[in-house]
Amino acid sequence: ENVDWRTSNKIIRLPGLVDVHVHLREPGATHKEDWDSGTATALAGGFTMVGAMPNTNPAIMDDASFELCKSLAASKARCDYGIFIGATFTNTTTAGKFASDAMGMKMYLEETFAPLPLKDDINVWRDHIMNWPGTTPICVHADGRNLAAILLLGWMYDKHMHVCHVSHKEEIDIIRDAKKRGMKLSCEVSPHHLTLCDKDIPRIGAGQSEVRPKLGTEEDLNALWDNIDYIDMIATDHAPHTWEEKCSAKPPPGFPGLETSLPLMLTAVHNGRITIEDLVMKMHTNPIRIFNLPEQPDTYIEVDMEQEWTIPKKPLYSRCGWTPFEGLQVRGKVVKVVLRGQIAFIDGKIIAQKGFGLNLRSKEYQVEKERLL
Amino acid sequence: ENVDWRTSNKIIRLPGLVDVHVHLREPGATHKEDWDSGTATALAGGFTMVGAMPNTNPAIMDDASFELCKSLAASKARCDYGIFIGATFTNTTTAGKFASDAMGMKMYLEETFAPLPLKDDINVWRDHIMNWPGTTPICVHADGRNLAAILLLGWMYDKHMHVCHVSHKEEIDIIRDAKKRGMKLSCEVSPHHLTLCDKDIPRIGAGQSEVRPKLGTEEDLNALWDNIDYIDMIATDHAPHTWEEKCSAKPPPGFPGLETSLPLMLTAVHNGRITIEDLVMKMHTNPIRIFNLPEQPDTYIEVDMEQEWTIPKKPLYSRCGWTPFEGLQVRGKVVKVVLRGQIAFIDGKIIAQKGFGLNLRSKEYQVEKERLL
Ligand SMILES: [Zn+2]
Ligand SMILES: [Zn+2]
Ligand SMILES: [Zn+2]
Ligand SMILES: [Zn+2]
Ligand SMILES: [Zn+2]
Ligand SMILES: [Zn+2]
Ligand SMILES: [Zn+2]
Ligand SMILES: [Zn+2]
Repeated sequence: ENVDWRTSNKIIRLPGLVDVHVHLREPGATHKEDWDSGTATALAGGFTMVGAMPNTNPAIMDDASFELCKSLAASKARCDYGIFIGATFTNTTTAGKFASDAMGMKMYLEETFAPLPLKDDINVWRDHIMNWPGTTPICVHADGRNLAAILLLGWMYDKHMHVCHVSHKEEIDIIRDAKKRGMKLSCEVSPHHLTLCDKDIPRIGAGQSEVRPKLGTEEDLNALWDNIDYIDMIATDHAPHTWEEKCSAKPPPGFPGLETSLPLMLTAVHNGRITIEDLVMKMHTNPIRIFNLPEQPDTYIEVDMEQEWTIPKKPLYSRCGWTPFEGLQVRGKVVKVVLRGQIAFIDGKIIAQKGFGLNLRSKEYQVEKERLL
Repeated sequence: ENVDWRTSNKIIRLPGLVDVHVHLREPGATHKEDWDSGTATALAGGFTMVGAMPNTNPAIMDDASFELCKSLAASKARCDYGIFIGATFTNTTTAGKFASDAMGMKMYLEETFAPLPLKDDINVWRDHIMNWPGTTPICVHADGRNLAAILLLGWMYDKHMHVCHVSHKEEIDIIRDAKKRGMKLSCEVSPHHLTLCDKDIPRIGAGQSEVRPKLGTEEDLNALWDNIDYIDMIATDHAPHTWEEKCSAKPPPGFPGLETSLPLMLTAVHNGRITIEDLVMKMHTNPIRIFNLPEQPDTYIEVDMEQEWTIPKKPLYSRCGWTPFEGLQVRGKVVKVVLRGQIAFIDGKIIAQKGFGLNLRSKEYQVEKERLL
């Protein structure tokens, strides 16, 4: 630990954070975010790897869309990344061929901001799970009984199921008890579901508070903290929409999260809700292990543990221009990010160039990694 | 095997059949059926034990209704029986106390002819399954993803789940694969789902064909036969409604089945779809073992294997006055039923008196059983 005497602050070094669940909105909605702004906001938040969700436009679900997304990412990303393949009604027999090139497969079992809903059809769910080669996880957006149903299918066909953004008592109860019974599965929770509940809706605004899964009750929030030992990772579910869109008559669901997640979680460390060791486990070690991601050589972040600040209305780098955490007091700030030996972010400034980021599942990444080791 | 030379028929002796799934409609709808007519129609079909479902009026879900049903049954039943307790939104903490007096617990997860729906609330499902002592099975009416969800809960809390009236490919696929993976569960299929499909609807009539689960396609029907080895038992789901009701603008779902089940299944034996040994397994041995029922001493039925007949419009004893199998040619007929040493049915006539039937879970039954052994 380095102590910076000039400001009486305590600077600690952490490994590069990994966020397996972000929406970068490109292709299709670059007014909300793109591979450039999205990976810049990731670096500003201390993340050196992100997993990009496939509910773009076009959705990432076949050769053409996967190649398009790969080339957009290759030319614009500033941090390392993986790309998810989306499960659809039409690609049950072909999604599996992306298993080793994709970050994983994403299945949307609920209505959400997605062109990829697999609503109610258990035969399609079963086909996808049976056909997935299983080298990387199957990530599911599933509530309540759909969660129970999909976990059974994963267990039956011995696949690794990863539950996205656990939000309510009913889901964490099932996940905890399934783990206790010996089921191999993993799950993530987002900082907003660990920080906000329905009591925050008046402050944030009704339309602005729309997010899927919805903000829970205080009981839901407490259930997540009570079962934090059963939660494998923190993932932001960074889902930017512009302030104008969030103020419209039909506000789309989703919050930005990349720049605010670590400060919010460090504040929880200060409040004694989680240890810094557990935080590193949930924001680096577990995502790397569970998603079978490569370690990044010469990569770390520096965090000022003591700096107190108020979250401003606008993130520095996300194109969305707002955050539901506006006005919250937090303690802890990312001051520097070093990615594969290069300073990528320092003192609020992005240094990494567009295109510096690499696809974690690519051959190119292996070559670069070996060069550095 | 006895051969009756006078008619060139072949009479064989089988153990008393057990039907774990019947609706006797009393209390509440004795114009459709009651404990007297329902157990008479059971004996006429070769059944010496039946399990009465709790979706009566009042529903069987607490002390008062369970005691009411017990006393109605004690005074009127002509064959032996068990009584199910129904799971409701309000008895999650109290249903379990009936575990050793009831045949089992029934959970309705779908809309059906029932005042007992537990639709969509996985928390209530979970509470019921966690709280059930587990000495007898939890029987579920559940389709598609609800079936997958409830099986996960049963597995998590190590309870014996029994799936009622499997009807479609999607459910038998799940059950087969869960069994292959090592899950302990059991299931039943009804003779109507093994005999009829949507192609029979014009013959039967649209309203008359209403049943839950609905008649499947030919593919569904074939899937049931293809997976017959994974089906533990045949149960009639005898669900009588009057002909007038079935012809009304809102026909209630359900078919009578007790008098026609064995003839239909014996016809399947003749057609080479199932062996007589497997049939006895699925209509006697497995229900006894799986529901932990007592054997009935000095009890057997005599069946004329070769008698060919056409199913008439009206069952002999069911009060409902119709059958969807009207006009079907079958081969095989019950000629005699001996229950606990007494002739209960012979040559089309019920001999057993009202009140001769005993509750299989009662102390009285144990005493009677010991007397006969
Ligand atoms: Zn989601
Ligand atoms: Zn939920
Ligand atoms: Zn998401
Ligand atoms: Zn590491
Ligand atoms: Zn049913
Ligand atoms: Zn079905
Ligand atoms: Zn039924
Ligand atoms: Zn026996």
